Amino acid sequence: MTDTIRDSVALVAVDWGTSNLRLSLLDNDGTVLAERSSDRGMGSLAPSEFEGALLELIDADLPDNKVTPVICCGMVGAAQGWKEATYQAVPCAPPDGKGATRVDAKDPRISVWILPGLKQTNPGDVMRGEETQIAGFLAENPDFDGVLCLPGTHTKWARISAKEVVSFQTYMTGELFALLSKQSVLRHTVNGDDWDADAFVDALSDAMSRPQSIASKLFGLRAEFLVGDMTPSQGKARLSGYLIGLELAGARPYWLGMPVALIGAPALCKLYQDGLTAQGVKASLHSVSDMTLSGLKAAYSDVKEMNP
Amino acid sequence: MTDTIRDSVALVAVDWGTSNLRLSLLDNDGTVLAERSSDRGMGSLAPSEFEGALLELIDADLPDNKVTPVICCGMVGAAQGWKEATYQAVPCAPPDGKGATRVDAKDPRISVWILPGLKQTNPGDVMRGEETQIAGFLAENPDFDGVLCLPGTHTKWARISAKEVVSFQTYMTGELFALLSKQSVLRHTVNGDDWDADAFVDALSDAMSRPQSIASKLFGLRAEFLVGDMTPSQGKARLSGYLIGLELAGARPYWLGMPVALIGAPALCKLYQDGLTAQGVKASLHSVSDMTLSGLKAAYSDVKEMNP
Repeated sequence: MTDTIRDSVALVAVDWGTSNLRLSLLDNDGTVLAERSSDRGMGSLAPSEFEGALLELIDADLPDNKVTPVICCGMVGAAQGWKEATYQAVPCAPPDGKGATRVDAKDPRISVWILPGLKQTNPGDVMRGEETQIAGFLAENPDFDGVLCLPGTHTKWARISAKEVVSFQTYMTGELFALLSKQSVLRHTVNGDDWDADAFVDALSDAMSRPQSIASKLFGLRAEFLVGDMTPSQGKARLSGYLIGLELAGARPYWLGMPVALIGAPALCKLYQDGLTAQGVKASLHSVSDMTLSGLKAAYSDVKEMNP
Repeated sequence: MTDTIRDSVALVAVDWGTSNLRLSLLDNDGTVLAERSSDRGMGSLAPSEFEGALLELIDADLPDNKVTPVICCGMVGAAQGWKEATYQAVPCAPPDGKGATRVDAKDPRISVWILPGLKQTNPGDVMRGEETQIAGFLAENPDFDGVLCLPGTHTKWARISAKEVVSFQTYMTGELFALLSKQSVLRHTVNGDDWDADAFVDALSDAMSRPQSIASKLFGLRAEFLVGDMTPSQGKARLSGYLIGLELAGARPYWLGMPVALIGAPALCKLYQDGLTAQGVKASLHSVSDMTLSGLKAAYSDVKEMNP
């Protein structure tokens, strides 16, 4: 199997985030030959360790008689990453391969490129990785005019018009959920295994109508467990509903009256979709791995053009 | 010195929270003979370890020929504490010694009592410890009609009228600050040593006018460090301003048009006072240790009356 890959691999497409490293090996037609991943994300690596973490996943697949291009997006290009890649300033088209940063890899079998991120000056904001998902989405939906929402640790909302990212805004919703559910006084009251969809929708609606009370609603999850009859499964759904509701209240200028497309983990995107549906907004769902791969492939054709 | 204390100690007044144990040794006139503290808070103790943690601080001070009363308030009375104490339901006067729970201490030199907490059914809320500060405040200001704010890990707002706690509300502001400044992606951008008072007030006012955007403003502290010129000291002041501003926006129904008294750590109370001043509200400052001691002393006279 590995020999078959080695005979036909033409590109390694890498999504390298803070926590995980995910890659696809593609042939000359863009067909995926294999997918690999590890937990060796940017956050756990010193600059000198990136090449080893990459080779650990692809060493046996690399042909010896030619140089295989490796195209990376994500936090691998942060200042603490393998090599710092540039940011392009919005409004602009999502970065393509033309602005990629070449990394000096020691292994002669690979040539490694990191794609740029996006930045915004006022209000200040940054992204690394999501711009490639946006590029992939636009490669498949070139006429989209509306709003992309990319839920995750740091959820991004991006206004798209005329093939450009006009502006974007990041919400720390996923990180707040992780901190509150694992490390706060709430950790024993929001750890249920079941999902209470009604509790989620009620909490979301409550947070949207009184977002200023969020820090009080959060303590209420502890109090109503102690003196009420709230279960840990209801607590988990309410915590999620409060935080996503708070975000939807803040992002209203983005989604109000706009076509919305969600790109991210399916279960999480479904929660955003449910929340938006409750506000009368129809949002479509798109696979984050498909969009990322599509964006990395499109960027590769630029790199190839510049480095034939 | 210890002999002098042993000759005259008549009461041990204990404020036993999640993180710390603080106590005062008092003589028959209520004069403080000594103050002691340790980091053996409720959160780090199994039920069988509380008596040892207490004796560690007072063993040498206890007379052998009589029983010395020990009056405790705080999380020591939680379900995970030494022994679970009751909650009294608001509206009610702040709990006094009459509802105290007797603990079976092994050492015959002490008789230990834990004061009740307060609970509220709708919206669900709880407090353990602050009710004793409130009792102390009302012992010294019996005619107060207004709002008490007790800033801390879980800040409490309490409406006081006719010597009763009418209602109260808890905000997780202090815990959010600790989680975000120490364990989130912001930890490297909000760790300055200086204080920027202008950045604090600007951020507070910003959060009060757009509380729904808080999760986005928070990420902005990371982004403006990366692509702007924000310093970690400005970041710290802005994080504090955002979170206290969010709380003041939520607690507006409490403080609007009311006399406000702040009870807590002086530096933290000063931030709340500055924030309230910017809203045209004058708030007085009161020492948390004085109020706690006053509340514990008042409760002791009830206990003594019931157990002469």
